[in-house]
Amino acid sequence: MPKRTSKDIRNESRFALLRGLYSLGTATRQELAATTGLSFATISNIVGELVEVGVLVEAGREDSGGGRPVTRLKISPERGALVGVDIAETYIHVDVYDLALGVIGQAESELAIEENEPAALVRRVAGVIDEAASGAGMPRSRLLRAGVSLPGQVDPQRGVSVFAPNWDWHEVHIQALLSEAIGLPVDVDNPLRAIALSELWFGAGRLVNNVATVNLGTGVGAGLAIDGELVRGASNTAGEWGHTTLVFDGRLCRCGRHGCVEAYLGVPGLQQTMAEINAGHDLLTGDRQREFVSDVAKGLSDGDPDCVKLLEVTGRYFAAALGNLINFINPDHVSVLGWTAGIIGPELLKVTEKYLPREVLPSAGSAVRLGLSTVVGNSVTLGMATLALEGFLEQVGVPSRGPAARTAAAKRAGVVPANQAAGT
Amino acid sequence: MPKRTSKDIRNESRFALLRGLYSLGTATRQELAATTGLSFATISNIVGELVEVGVLVEAGREDSGGGRPVTRLKISPERGALVGVDIAETYIHVDVYDLALGVIGQAESELAIEENEPAALVRRVAGVIDEAASGAGMPRSRLLRAGVSLPGQVDPQRGVSVFAPNWDWHEVHIQALLSEAIGLPVDVDNPLRAIALSELWFGAGRLVNNVATVNLGTGVGAGLAIDGELVRGASNTAGEWGHTTLVFDGRLCRCGRHGCVEAYLGVPGLQQTMAEINAGHDLLTGDRQREFVSDVAKGLSDGDPDCVKLLEVTGRYFAAALGNLINFINPDHVSVLGWTAGIIGPELLKVTEKYLPREVLPSAGSAVRLGLSTVVGNSVTLGMATLALEGFLEQVGVPSRGPAARTAAAKRAGVVPANQAAGT
Repeated sequence: MPKRTSKDIRNESRFALLRGLYSLGTATRQELAATTGLSFATISNIVGELVEVGVLVEAGREDSGGGRPVTRLKISPERGALVGVDIAETYIHVDVYDLALGVIGQAESELAIEENEPAALVRRVAGVIDEAASGAGMPRSRLLRAGVSLPGQVDPQRGVSVFAPNWDWHEVHIQALLSEAIGLPVDVDNPLRAIALSELWFGAGRLVNNVATVNLGTGVGAGLAIDGELVRGASNTAGEWGHTTLVFDGRLCRCGRHGCVEAYLGVPGLQQTMAEINAGHDLLTGDRQREFVSDVAKGLSDGDPDCVKLLEVTGRYFAAALGNLINFINPDHVSVLGWTAGIIGPELLKVTEKYLPREVLPSAGSAVRLGLSTVVGNSVTLGMATLALEGFLEQVGVPSRGPAARTAAAKRAGVVPANQAAGT
Repeated sequence: MPKRTSKDIRNESRFALLRGLYSLGTATRQELAATTGLSFATISNIVGELVEVGVLVEAGREDSGGGRPVTRLKISPERGALVGVDIAETYIHVDVYDLALGVIGQAESELAIEENEPAALVRRVAGVIDEAASGAGMPRSRLLRAGVSLPGQVDPQRGVSVFAPNWDWHEVHIQALLSEAIGLPVDVDNPLRAIALSELWFGAGRLVNNVATVNLGTGVGAGLAIDGELVRGASNTAGEWGHTTLVFDGRLCRCGRHGCVEAYLGVPGLQQTMAEINAGHDLLTGDRQREFVSDVAKGLSDGDPDCVKLLEVTGRYFAAALGNLINFINPDHVSVLGWTAGIIGPELLKVTEKYLPREVLPSAGSAVRLGLSTVVGNSVTLGMATLALEGFLEQVGVPSRGPAARTAAAKRAGVVPANQAAGT
């Protein structure tokens, strides 16, 4: 049973205030109270703390209609910078953000699959961060904290990569390694958590409470927010929708299961579908995932019948896989992102929407909207920068505890003794 | 974005206190503070309110080791009774509960599929309630409130059966009809919400935060609790795991989709699997769902090879379907219940556990435990009685607002204006 303390409640309030301020841009205390539903006293309290540590600054004063002028507030873009890092299977992408979470610098570098030695990898990451920071004209001394997304199972509390199948990592203490190499406090997490958080703070989550954020790329997964809260699950691996069955006894997935969604919707899955349609198609030459998707886009605009067929078959798979997700968790919104979506998203969604009605129960189907994510930029680095912001606020003495920390605290505190059979 | 008020927080605290007290049986204020993590002041406050309305009573006093004696508290079994009703497709089951949520009377009646006229159905329900109450020696005047579970999509806020495919109901104002026929305030909801709530208050949810409660019967579904909170979804239909794809282009499901989990794990699905194994098997004569499962149990204990094969095939299906659930939401615990589970649960779980490791990702698989639910009695009526208890507390002036009400309130209050593109 989760325990709640007044501190949790206070920090949830701050979370609500910051989300409100990112939505509004600038706001008065009154506007923040109206937006969040928190009391004016609570808002004033939190604003006071955040002004004291330089995170909030005055954005002007305005007439309040007779009384004293009221102060508009904004998040300070001058307070320093946060670093968001997306370490994927084939690249390292870094965005440097100001505290208003606007991008002020970026850099990217390819990553070979064999570069799996932790110490060497973190040196690579540090190099890409330096490049991004210098592009932003930002000396290292003004970088406040970094949030780093890693593939596989990550334990953010312990700072450990529990298991990363692509690198064959088990229990790698990556947070400490990164922090030493970068010279900054570091938060680590999994990309599904990062995209869910981006969507919650900056995408569909600003409007509705239950959002699934579906990533389509080499891999496939979904970040989940339920009742306005990020879903982590028991071991921070919730959202592995890519590894749910679409076809019983179907294609072998790289996870070892058969018939997974990823084996049909991940880029290698798209390539396999194309091979089933026309094994001799030009697009299948070489080992070029990103070029493949771009070539499909070109083929579609040229009316290549095999590409049209690929889109049709893939749309049917996507509709069935989305039907599973929608029937199971009954979201208000499904946001689609990822690099495949960035290239053929509109075309794929159009076909998918044709097949979707037959895959959803009327009750869940009528409640959901499907669309490409409206989050600007890289959702993984943005989500990690958001986590780094929370970490920074703790660091400067305005401690925060999100839902995951609360759960962990409840677990540490032990369970409720069941010394009487209930319900009898 | 959900809004939180101090009232929400207060009521979440009461929820935690009541759950703690159901676990502990009797408790002092100090013990309740230790169990829930709430402050002693908060506990005293809520206890004061609940004593005033007669829900909590003294269960004795004990030496506190020198100072004043401390009072033990318990939930009053004398305060009156709650009614939990499970209207399923083929029966109406009623349990009468005291406020300590112990069963004090019950009755059941068969329901024919053609009895779908709302006014006639509620008269039938009222009759079964009368029978259960008189069995409990409980005059109608001492019944406080009823919680009624209905199949299909239910909107508990509006008291409406939005859509019940088995009865072809659309927008039936069932709460008002029930309340008039029964002569009591009534809460309505869906059985997946009820079993999730039972498991949260009285089953695995006492020990861990993320629980899926899987129901195996004629139909198949899952009630969800995430981070210790009941999951409703956008339109109160979360958990329709029975209508997620197990076999792409597979068996036609009665929902109209193909290859749904329910088409393999619901009792008609088991019968179809048996027909595929041996179309001439004795068990398949007649249209007798419950007898079929009992006959399978008998066949298994007699070593009937077709029954053994059925169990094996069904265990593989169940493992794949559970793998989907586990990989997607990463629960701490999966509790299995329902009448099929009541008859062949242990045998089915044994086979399922053999196949499960190949269906789960290591990260999610190592975090989860699978077992038959430990909730005693009918989880649907117990969950509905729990909702009726919450409703009763509102009714007597100790208003409560659960997560669903909060979500609805946030929606009514409108959304956060997005007057500035974020993340740019």
